[in-house]
Amino acid sequence: MTATQQNLVHLEDIRDAAARISGLVVRTPLLPSPWAEELWLKPESLQPIGAFKLRGATNALHRLDIEHRRAGVVTHSSGNHGQALAYAGRALGVPVTVVMPDVSTPLKIEATRGYGAEVILVPQSQREVRALQLVEERGLTLIPPYDHPDIIAGQGTVGLEIFEDLSSVDVVVVPVGGGGLSSGVATAVKSLAPHVAVIGVEPAVAADAAESLAAGMVRIWPEARMLSTVADGLRTPLSELTLAHLSSYLDAIVTVSEEEILDTVRTLARKARLVVEPSGAVATAAVLHRRDELPAGRTVAVISGGNIAPELAATLFA
Amino acid sequence: MTATQQNLVHLEDIRDAAARISGLVVRTPLLPSPWAEELWLKPESLQPIGAFKLRGATNALHRLDIEHRRAGVVTHSSGNHGQALAYAGRALGVPVTVVMPDVSTPLKIEATRGYGAEVILVPQSQREVRALQLVEERGLTLIPPYDHPDIIAGQGTVGLEIFEDLSSVDVVVVPVGGGGLSSGVATAVKSLAPHVAVIGVEPAVAADAAESLAAGMVRIWPEARMLSTVADGLRTPLSELTLAHLSSYLDAIVTVSEEEILDTVRTLARKARLVVEPSGAVATAAVLHRRDELPAGRTVAVISGGNIAPELAATLFA
Repeated sequence: MTATQQNLVHLEDIRDAAARISGLVVRTPLLPSPWAEELWLKPESLQPIGAFKLRGATNALHRLDIEHRRAGVVTHSSGNHGQALAYAGRALGVPVTVVMPDVSTPLKIEATRGYGAEVILVPQSQREVRALQLVEERGLTLIPPYDHPDIIAGQGTVGLEIFEDLSSVDVVVVPVGGGGLSSGVATAVKSLAPHVAVIGVEPAVAADAAESLAAGMVRIWPEARMLSTVADGLRTPLSELTLAHLSSYLDAIVTVSEEEILDTVRTLARKARLVVEPSGAVATAAVLHRRDELPAGRTVAVISGGNIAPELAATLFA
Repeated sequence: MTATQQNLVHLEDIRDAAARISGLVVRTPLLPSPWAEELWLKPESLQPIGAFKLRGATNALHRLDIEHRRAGVVTHSSGNHGQALAYAGRALGVPVTVVMPDVSTPLKIEATRGYGAEVILVPQSQREVRALQLVEERGLTLIPPYDHPDIIAGQGTVGLEIFEDLSSVDVVVVPVGGGGLSSGVATAVKSLAPHVAVIGVEPAVAADAAESLAAGMVRIWPEARMLSTVADGLRTPLSELTLAHLSSYLDAIVTVSEEEILDTVRTLARKARLVVEPSGAVATAAVLHRRDELPAGRTVAVISGGNIAPELAATLFA
């Protein structure tokens, strides 16, 4: 057993996380989808910040002792994780600093500030360095977006809830970006019911996780290449820690095309009445377009988030 | 006490309904809305048929004895109630016939048939007559869309759930069409907590319920006038039974403009990531645009449904 395997998150960690975050995040329902066969949706887009990230962020802040809570936390993730941390920090009284690239959209900066976080804008390449400086200078705790057991345990509560609501589930399909959500969900589901298949999904044009799993090591694709997917939440590489979880618990990875992703965003708006971002739609896209690549039976697709750019939404729904 | 008052639905009826429909309808969450002050949303648009109507329809079918279940049921409501009855009938093994006007959109006809109901198309004016004929000829039970205690009790479960999730609620805001939902919710909330304000909302251009409540009798506005609201689910008059409930339990009715309704449909898509139909948006519209007319405090807006016409959605989200 390697050091990384010893550090895997366990079912008990996820159960503890569920108790910690209860009342601080939305207990999302499992939605039957009569317009598709044997499909249920787990809409994390309904979290107040629009994504599952609130679960991990809330769990991670909750785990800090009183001194570290007082000092505050910092992250260099500019997307949903930054907003999740800001929101959780406000709920728990923990000061939050988010280092964002100076090219971030005003919408994202405003949203993060709106939840009460301090936003520091720096050139893209200096984000991590600046965050580490803040750890040194101000005694802040760094809360990474996915490469942390407390984050993975928090996201894993999605898996617990799926099983609570549909104990007869056969297949769970989940998006794979940095691997925090998929690691947590796979760990929860496989620990509760090893016979349930857990399938990861990523864009075909950003299939670094599939390659990493096949190679048994983290493969990092060039940023320019990752930019070719519209699913901006899935452009991040796995970490050693998430790769270890996925190697242990994930049954397979399926990839979907850009067209299938956008078509599914449209379908979810029309049929499920949900506004979903492209990254959030990939699991449902696999069910709707690649069912022959999935095991048969009662299938849950995790919708990870709903923060679609207004311009993209306008073109898709027009 | 008049005959109608004796027939009012009571808290116990709503609790019984909740037990009956549990597992057959979605237990919708209460969504905190950080983009507005002290606002929570109750998104009934997430029911599998896209509206709260599934609660009442399921309760009404569940209450039938085995003989009447076998014979089947009929309704002449062509909208969400028809689809709700079809869906509930399939789940409970009850044959469902829906009499629809021959001018119904193919989308609505297909959806109703898709849930396994028999659809009979007749000229608009003959809907009720044809449904009553079917009651005679085939021994079907007529299940009306709102003028029935079992329907009101089923819709009232929305109120129970609001209180379960936010016992510190101060104000509940609910759309008023035929009055089934508002009667059930007001009865549940006021019976549990008389200090909580329950406010109905309807379009200013279709304010027949406000007028009926002021007059103490059901006022029916001409169909042509009711057509002037985009909120097509709120064009129906109250019944004696729903008026009796609303007279007893509703604190006030607020009206909203057509512009405010459409603006709120847009806001709910962007900020709450929910696809909502105009009728479903009126309660939130009152909170966002008429807050000065509402009591202060922690406010829940009920979103009654999400079945927006695709053409309207396209223009709004473009």
